Amino acid sequence: MTDPRPFASHRVQVYYEDTDLSGAVYHANYLKYCERAREHLIGPQELAKLYNDHGIGFVVYRAELTYRKSAMLADLLDVRTRIHVESRYRAIFHQDIHRLPDDAQPIVNVLIHLVCVDQNQQLVPLPDWVYQGLKDLPSP
Amino acid sequence: MTDPRPFASHRVQVYYEDTDLSGAVYHANYLKYCERAREHLIGPQELAKLYNDHGIGFVVYRAELTYRKSAMLADLLDVRTRIHVESRYRAIFHQDIHRLPDDAQPIVNVLIHLVCVDQNQQLVPLPDWVYQGLKDLPSP
Amino acid sequence: MTDPRPFASHRVQVYYEDTDLSGAVYHANYLKYCERAREHLIGPQELAKLYNDHGIGFVVYRAELTYRKSAMLADLLDVRTRIHVESRYRAIFHQDIHRLPDDAQPIVNVLIHLVCVDQNQQLVPLPDWVYQGLKDLPSP
Amino acid sequence: MTDPRPFASHRVQVYYEDTDLSGAVYHANYLKYCERAREHLIGPQELAKLYNDHGIGFVVYRAELTYRKSAMLADLLDVRTRIHVESRYRAIFHQDIHRLPDDAQPIVNVLIHLVCVDQNQQLVPLPDWVYQGLKDLPSP
Repeated sequence: MTDPRPFASHRVQVYYEDTDLSGAVYHANYLKYCERAREHLIGPQELAKLYNDHGIGFVVYRAELTYRKSAMLADLLDVRTRIHVESRYRAIFHQDIHRLPDDAQPIVNVLIHLVCVDQNQQLVPLPDWVYQGLKDLPSP
Repeated sequence: MTDPRPFASHRVQVYYEDTDLSGAVYHANYLKYCERAREHLIGPQELAKLYNDHGIGFVVYRAELTYRKSAMLADLLDVRTRIHVESRYRAIFHQDIHRLPDDAQPIVNVLIHLVCVDQNQQLVPLPDWVYQGLKDLPSP
Repeated sequence: MTDPRPFASHRVQVYYEDTDLSGAVYHANYLKYCERAREHLIGPQELAKLYNDHGIGFVVYRAELTYRKSAMLADLLDVRTRIHVESRYRAIFHQDIHRLPDDAQPIVNVLIHLVCVDQNQQLVPLPDWVYQGLKDLPSP
Repeated sequence: MTDPRPFASHRVQVYYEDTDLSGAVYHANYLKYCERAREHLIGPQELAKLYNDHGIGFVVYRAELTYRKSAMLADLLDVRTRIHVESRYRAIFHQDIHRLPDDAQPIVNVLIHLVCVDQNQQLVPLPDWVYQGLKDLPSP
């Protein structure tokens, strides 16, 4: 049964570089896929400007991954993101990775706690437009 | 002046994962971008089938890279590929990486010599449909 | 205060390739460091033989990471592993990453659930010598 | 026949993370191995200080790789470096990667042209102690 809740979608093609000798995607790479999806939600240009002009960066504070099935070379994946903005300081991304065209069962479930830090690696609130923007995205 | 010769195009978005502490793309990653472009030229599904069903894989025999400028976070790149099929055994990919929207000057020039090997890592001819397909693509 | 429990130690040097534009180690790379430590516990040669001769591979079923501080270029890290062999089918690796020479506080805590699969990605028991070997290592 | 010229040695263990579905090391990763070797020649701490305190970084201007054989999981490699300091502005690293214990034939030959840039990505001379230090290392 397909999960009926809305989500933000990001497609990922699996290439040679992603696999290891088992033929499946190397387990650390799913973290990369999830970050690509998050970068598109905030906007690559906005993210770069925030860092270059204001010294503010996003940092993963906690990550949890449950690996149910393996992605293989040539698979087309869909990273489906829903966001819970816990506070001014922390957003929690629920990111389910599906292998297309199968909608029903995610192959990997990822939970990412994201915070913002300044140039001195000190915690700062999420910038206002990020906070509002994330609150408007599908929630878990 | 824009290079007027036709090419096969593959777009690459630069993410956090691609950069190093200099802020620029880590130098080895351009090889990944070029391989992604080559995989799309042959077809990810066809590539996977060739490997899984026939034990035939593509191997880089030689790579030459000239780094002229750096790609940065959020840049959108275009890998422009032209192919010289030197023989039944070797295809040479001329891959110029441009930072969009700048068409005129590639930031990295890459030359890749590709061969095919079987499961025992022995050289085999390029499969016929690959050989013909590559010959039909833009040449340098 | 230094944690007095014994552990298996694996040193990791941080290189350019490990960092991202923030200057810190990219968050997915800590999973690589932990896997290197696990490979040395089982033995790289033994691991390769198990896979090549018996088609048995190790698969991460679940990973949890808590990022407390960042590792930077030139840091020397120590991955400290303790193992709880939960059953014939699952080993749980508690891997604390320290930045040397600081012994007291890990910068990243990692928990890895490892299982074994055969060539068809079906769950199989841990090979006997692996099971016994892991039970003899420091426990959490 | 073993190459009798002296070299600077750097050992690399091949892990799961390094391989792709062919079972061999992914072709871009040899560039990482060579950079690790170069970082140890200059010194990881010195490299970090040069960057953090003086804004000076090392940039690969050109790379040439010839892949003769494949490295596999659990292989122990030796990156053997000889350096030609071409001018105050450029050092050329000849890096032959051997699979131990085989001394005679490198599996990959790498040539790296290295330059220094400041924070604005402008070419600067190699710092004096780097220039002198590299000149004292084995030459090709």
